[in-house]
Amino acid sequence: MEVLDKANFRIKMAGEELVIAVVQDHETDEVLMVAFMNRDALERTLATGTMTYYSTSRKELWVKGGTSGNTQEVREVFMDCDGDALVFRVKQKRAACHEGYYSCFFRRIEDGRLKTAGRKVFDPGDVYK
Amino acid sequence: MEVLDKANFRIKMAGEELVIAVVQDHETDEVLMVAFMNRDALERTLATGTMTYYSTSRKELWVKGGTSGNTQEVREVFMDCDGDALVFRVKQKRAACHEGYYSCFFRRIEDGRLKTAGRKVFDPGDVYK
Repeated sequence: MEVLDKANFRIKMAGEELVIAVVQDHETDEVLMVAFMNRDALERTLATGTMTYYSTSRKELWVKGGTSGNTQEVREVFMDCDGDALVFRVKQKRAACHEGYYSCFFRRIEDGRLKTAGRKVFDPGDVYK
Repeated sequence: MEVLDKANFRIKMAGEELVIAVVQDHETDEVLMVAFMNRDALERTLATGTMTYYSTSRKELWVKGGTSGNTQEVREVFMDCDGDALVFRVKQKRAACHEGYYSCFFRRIEDGRLKTAGRKVFDPGDVYK
């Protein structure tokens, strides 16, 4: 597949070669999260239409929403000029962040300090037991 | 500064510890590019309000627009839950991509193939001599 040949897995972490996945809400254009994909994760994401990452901490493939049910369905995909990053425009179920916020980028920087600014959608204690 | 303490420079490349910078147009919400920042680049970006990256190929700080004039002025900044990525909402002058496109994500993936889909704003041959 052309996209797999053109992807530039230049980021080496956890013994893997990775690209960056930027995830954007296809309706609101909000940036929801950033994660990594190895070749297998990218291939499965494109084949299944469900966002699948490589977890650098657990060192395994990670189907987003596998535990929480908060899946992300792919609507559109874009690759950048040097091929080391992709933008996935997705339909997000409930929330992207394990802390319960719709977007992982829920902290706004104001005068060098972090202020919570995002929408909280669920209580993590109710979901991850 | 709290943001520098909370930033998680966990990506090791080119002998540096880096975070991911996702750059989003503050008016159109388009994702313009993804690049890396070391601690110094993040500090300077926040201090000057002009996007400054760490170039992993040239191994030096890189003020975006230094050669091309296509600078990015910071309007808003967000940090993700684990601190290894930030979203910078910017005012982009002319174009983000050295290939002349408004966004570096100018290639859309359709059935596994790459199709040019972005707006071309300038001819790189006229800018980088």
